[in-house]
This record gives sequence, C-alpha cells and structure tokens, in this order.
Amino acid sequence: VAGIITLTTDFGLDDGYVAAMKGVILGLNPDVRLVDISHQVPPGDIGRAAFILGSVYRFFPGSTVHLAVVDPGVGTSRRAIILQTPDGSFIGPDNGVLTFVIENYCTPAGENMALLSQEAMAVEIAKRRFFHEPVSSTFHGRDIFAPVAALLAIGAPLADFGPRVDSLLVLPCPRPQKEPDGSVRGHVQYIDHFGNLVTDIRTAQLPSGRVSIELLGRVISGLGHNYADTGELVAVIGSSGYLEVALAGGSVETFLGARLGDSVIVRLSA
Amino acid sequence: VAGIITLTTDFGLDDGYVAAMKGVILGLNPDVRLVDISHQVPPGDIGRAAFILGSVYRFFPGSTVHLAVVDPGVGTSRRAIILQTPDGSFIGPDNGVLTFVIENYCTPAGENMALLSQEAMAVEIAKRRFFHEPVSSTFHGRDIFAPVAALLAIGAPLADFGPRVDSLLVLPCPRPQKEPDGSVRGHVQYIDHFGNLVTDIRTAQLPSGRVSIELLGRVISGLGHNYADTGELVAVIGSSGYLEVALAGGSVETFLGARLGDSVIVRLSA
Amino acid sequence: VAGIITLTTDFGLDDGYVAAMKGVILGLNPDVRLVDISHQVPPGDIGRAAFILGSVYRFFPGSTVHLAVVDPGVGTSRRAIILQTPDGSFIGPDNGVLTFVIENYCTPAGENMALLSQEAMAVEIAKRRFFHEPVSSTFHGRDIFAPVAALLAIGAPLADFGPRVDSLLVLPCPRPQKEPDGSVRGHVQYIDHFGNLVTDIRTAQLPSGRVSIELLGRVISGLGHNYADTGELVAVIGSSGYLEVALAGGSVETFLGARLGDSVIVRLSA
Repeated sequence: VAGIITLTTDFGLDDGYVAAMKGVILGLNPDVRLVDISHQVPPGDIGRAAFILGSVYRFFPGSTVHLAVVDPGVGTSRRAIILQTPDGSFIGPDNGVLTFVIENYCTPAGENMALLSQEAMAVEIAKRRFFHEPVSSTFHGRDIFAPVAALLAIGAPLADFGPRVDSLLVLPCPRPQKEPDGSVRGHVQYIDHFGNLVTDIRTAQLPSGRVSIELLGRVISGLGHNYADTGELVAVIGSSGYLEVALAGGSVETFLGARLGDSVIVRLSA
Repeated sequence: VAGIITLTTDFGLDDGYVAAMKGVILGLNPDVRLVDISHQVPPGDIGRAAFILGSVYRFFPGSTVHLAVVDPGVGTSRRAIILQTPDGSFIGPDNGVLTFVIENYCTPAGENMALLSQEAMAVEIAKRRFFHEPVSSTFHGRDIFAPVAALLAIGAPLADFGPRVDSLLVLPCPRPQKEPDGSVRGHVQYIDHFGNLVTDIRTAQLPSGRVSIELLGRVISGLGHNYADTGELVAVIGSSGYLEVALAGGSVETFLGARLGDSVIVRLSA
Repeated sequence: VAGIITLTTDFGLDDGYVAAMKGVILGLNPDVRLVDISHQVPPGDIGRAAFILGSVYRFFPGSTVHLAVVDPGVGTSRRAIILQTPDGSFIGPDNGVLTFVIENYCTPAGENMALLSQEAMAVEIAKRRFFHEPVSSTFHGRDIFAPVAALLAIGAPLADFGPRVDSLLVLPCPRPQKEPDGSVRGHVQYIDHFGNLVTDIRTAQLPSGRVSIELLGRVISGLGHNYADTGELVAVIGSSGYLEVALAGGSVETFLGARLGDSVIVRLSA
C-alpha cells in the first residue's frame, strides 16, 4: 500500500467527476488508499470545505495526502499549491480551502494572508510534466491535482512540483472575543447534517467555572455531557473540540432557525 | 489485506464524520478494506439501519466486521457491544441496531430482549485501552467503535474488549400472522429508494398455491417474476427473501401513498 | 491487487443494494479495487448512466472492469453482456447503457443497433456456473453482474461466460448537424450537478474561427477559457470534450430553465 489520499470536493455524487479523479490517481498509483471526506460541499463554498477538512485531517496518519478541490476560480491565475505539515500533506487551490490547516502552522500576515512557520512547507504546483494531458481549463481536479496527489503519495519530493512559496491565502474567519466581563462571544461557524450548531469557541477558550450559553434569545445552563441529557437544548464540547449546541432527538438549526454567523455568548454563571 | 470492515451510520455524507472514523481505522489497520453500506439512515432511525444491515451482511465473507453506528444515546449508559457469529462480526450500541442479525442466533426473552444461542457470542466493549483518546462524549463512532473494529479485523480476540454478555436488546418487530382461513397478514417493513415496498412476509411463510395480495384497497393477483411483468402493481419475491410490492417503472410508495406498517394480506386464490 | 472494478447504478445510496454487490465481489476477489462512479442515476435513466460512464471510463486503466447496472428490464429476456475493448471491459444489460462506449468501436446498423468492429469483442452472459445462487429475479446486479465482474477482474477469459455476440443495442442519440451556412446545431445532452449544460457538440465539430453560441434566446460571443471569465453566461470546451454552457458562480439550468434536448446553435461570427 502506497499511502492514503483523501478527497474533499464540491463535485457532488451525481456525475462522474470524482470517479474521473480516482481513475487518474489509480492509473499512476494503483495501490493507494482512497477515502472520500465529502463531495457534498455546496458549489463554491470554500469556507465549508475548509472547516470539514480541518475537523478531520488529524484523524488520519501524518503520511496522508489530502486533496481539496473546491475551486470556483479554476483556470484563472489563482495558484495551485501543496502544503506539507507534520500532520499531513494538502493539495488544492490557494483560495483559502486549507485555512483550518494553515492556521496551525503560520503567523498571520494581514487579513487574508498567512506566513508559514518553519514546521510547514509549501510549493506552487507549476511543473507541467506531472499533469494529465491535455489539461482542460475547467477540471484541474482531474488533470492537475489528481496526478500530483498520486505522485506525492508515492513519495515524490515536494521540490519536484514547483517553487517554494512562503505565504498562503486564508479566509478571514470570525474569532470568538473575550468581553470585559469575562464572557466569551463567538459565532455559529458550521451546521452539520443533524442540525447541530458548531461554534468557533474552543474548549480552552471557555471561562472556567459553571457557564451559561446564550443564542437566539435562549439561555442554556451549563454544559451537558451528551446529546441525550435532555429533551431540550443542550450545549456540549463537541467532537471537533468546539462548543456545540444540539437538540436531543432533533435539529437545532430547524428548531431555532439558526444560521451561520449567529452570535453565541458564554457567560460565567452567577 | 487484513479483513473487511463495513460501515452503516446515520452520519450522512455532507460532514466529515464518516471520514474521521475511516482515518482512525486506517491508522490502526492500514490494509483493511472499507465498504460503506449506508450513511443515509435518517438521524436516529435504528429500525431502518437494522433492516439494511440485516439484508446485506450475508453477502459478505464471514470474516467481515460490520460497524453499525446509529446511536441516539451516545454518551449515556447504553452498552457498546461486539457480536460474533459464523456469518460475521458486528459492532455497535446495544440499542437494537443489530436486531435482524441477532434474531438468527437467539431465543426471545421478552419483547425487547434476546438470549444468544451457542452459535453466537457477545461482549460488552469496556476496556478503554483500545479507545482513541481523548474519548469525546458525542462521537463514540470515531473514538470507540472505529478503533475496536480496526483491531477486531486484525484478529484481536473478543475477550480483549470486555466481559461476555448473554442477552441483547432487540427491537419489537411486527411479525406476519397466520389467520384461521390460511391467509397471512403482514406489514410494510421497509420502503426502498425506488419506492418498492418490502413486507415482513418471508418466502417460506407464503401460503402454497396461487395467491392474491391485498394492500391499501388494491388486490394483486399472483406473484410476478420481475418488475417489468406489468405496467401496474406487481408482487414479487424480492431480493432480500421477503414479499415485495412494486410498480413497474414507478414508485408504489408515491402511487399508493404507502407507509411503514401498512397491512399486507396474502390469501390463497379461490 | 487484482484489478479495478467501477460501479455505475441507479440504486442510490440509501439502501444496501450497492453494498450487497460489493460483498459478493469481495467474496470472490478480495484484492480488487472498487470505485463508485455514480449510484445517483435517476431510476431507470439508461441514457444518463450511459453518458456518465462514457465520460469517465477513459480515465481508468484499460484493465479496468466497468459495471453498469441501470436495468429496468431485470428478469426479462433482455440480454446481459460483457464488452471488451482496449480501453476497458464493460458489464451490464444490453439495453443501451453502454452506448457511449460502443459508439467508439462499432459501425451503426439501424437506429438502435450497432455492429462491433474488430477492436472490440462482446459475449452474452449465459453460463450460470458463475452466478451467485439462488439467483433472484429482481437483483441481477448482485447475483449475476457482480460475480461476473469479480471473476473477469481476476482474469477469467471472456469465452467462459457465454457465446459471442456481434451486435449490441444502442440508444438513438441526438447528433449535432451541420447546416448549409456552416453553423452547427446540437443539443443539451447532459446537465451536471453545477447546472452546467453539456451539449453533444464535440470540439472537432466546432466551426473554425470565432464563433457565437445561441440557446434559449441568448447569444454568447466566443468561447471562454474557464468558468470565471465572466459573471454571465460562458461557453467553454468542457472537460469531457464537448461544448458546455455555464454560468460563473451559478446554475445555467436554473437561470435559463434549460432542459435536456434544448437546441444549441454555433455560428461563425460575422
């Protein structure tokens, strides 16, 4: 077995686009393991793809190659990149789709730019000799990213693919803020298939002590331990390490009409 | 290749939850084969997951490990179990999701409880040393079931995971009844993607001789041999061994407004 | 690793049908690679399955076995076939689902029939000894096509499966026509997940010179190079080698209310 390649795209499962990428990969690297992360990212939703990949990559071996193709600018001058970190290698357009990976290996350099720290290294994919010819102008996932992933998983050195780059594009994520009274104000940053709300507040950012959680006019007292603690709203430390709000046996999204970006405030209980 | 692991969940394909489980599995057992059964089980629908797994597991080698994670009680005191049978090993919460497997290896012991026969053996998953730490309270699929499946597929003995249990929880399934006049009264127990109605009446339970099938005010004369026998309703012995009602080129579910639990009566024709 | 098998079906991802096929395949050929092309073909939509498979198979190694099971006539007298070509082997019902493969290796012989050329060879699947018994009348994907694919991928010779056939059924596809004034009149033949319209006009059939593209009362001037060239409609040579019409950042299907079969006219610009 020559490595693992994961795939995160907005290609959906109706057409043959994902399979075309897999065919190209298997033609070059017949023994690689292919794992779908999600192909149901809404078309062009770079932020959602970035969050999904960011919440999953740590559960794969560090030798894994993660391919992320949500690429509304395909065929334009946006760069294609490879990012190598101790926790995995990542391939995709330089459009922010790797934001939740990059943020662990960088110092910020402006709202949309990150300078890589020494733990990580990135190159621009520039050398055509690895591409699947003829390269289409609309499907770089198949013609550029797939063959590069196949060869990287075999062990081709990073320098074979193009010149080193030191700064990468990141999305301007909302961040939770600490208020003067000790409370933390965050946001809903992801809503999952169950309608659970994943906030941007990490465990370490929670006030220590008993807390209450406010969102959309509701107040939840204390953190629960699981989704079944109650028939009503429950706040838990979710499996991604962020504060989550759930509704036992239902969808909070539907129940509260919650949306991405909604404010969530965590206060120390009186 | 170290075994096959199948996955049946209600996690959907939008998020990264299934991939996180696969990453954990591949980290422990890099050569295992992973096969998705379904991740489109409606959230918390234990009965539907149980039927799907029950209709599929016999088509896999007996060495296969089947992982079933439809687990609305995750993090509560519900047990996590491994069930080993000649036809496969099964891992999941002890909440009925293995009902259609258990029923082949048990004697009933009350409406919701089954005593395992000697062909099968079960243990409660209790020893933490195999878990993926830190164990979240909301995602045992990733932190408990996935690593246990990976190690079981490698060949770890059942006793390594916890103490033996003899009775398991099963769902109270509707069963077809033989009426005094020789007819059989069953129910719609599953509706598939095509809108075909799968009843709970097995081939062996059909009256011998020419039959007619009644449901929702319609009468179907005789069993057909395939879906194309007619432009109207057709009753066939379906591929799972149950009597099915289908509509050639369409959905019976939509055509008749059929629902789970609807009565289906099979009579000997006059 | 003993080969690659791809799967294209209308079985959807909700039920266990696809997994049952995979279980049968892995029981016979434990080392084969399985790749899903699409299982989201609308029930019975042979033409859509044919297009999807036709646009993807060339990206797989020539040793790949492609299984296509969109089979509304399952259990009737329609033939089951294997088609072997230099670009891959194909298994499915003889109902047109292989049309976009066959057209590359045949001479037409009437509207719905194609005579194979010498490059390709086909057999009817007739010998039961390879079937998964008992063979159901409604799920030949599992009981006939899956085991045949497994054994073909291992290297079983074509003649083992049944007698040679020389003519195969093909769908009567709309073809673009060259008009007296040099323009080309084609049709929308596929609409993808993004709402992009794929026409039946191949690159080689485009008039040489600067063109304009008309559909549904709109005129697009010239071919673009990618989807991001404009905020409006754009015509591009798509990744399948056909002329496509797209809307940057949106769905043309929705924007224009486009449908399969809609006329697309390409004219030389004045």
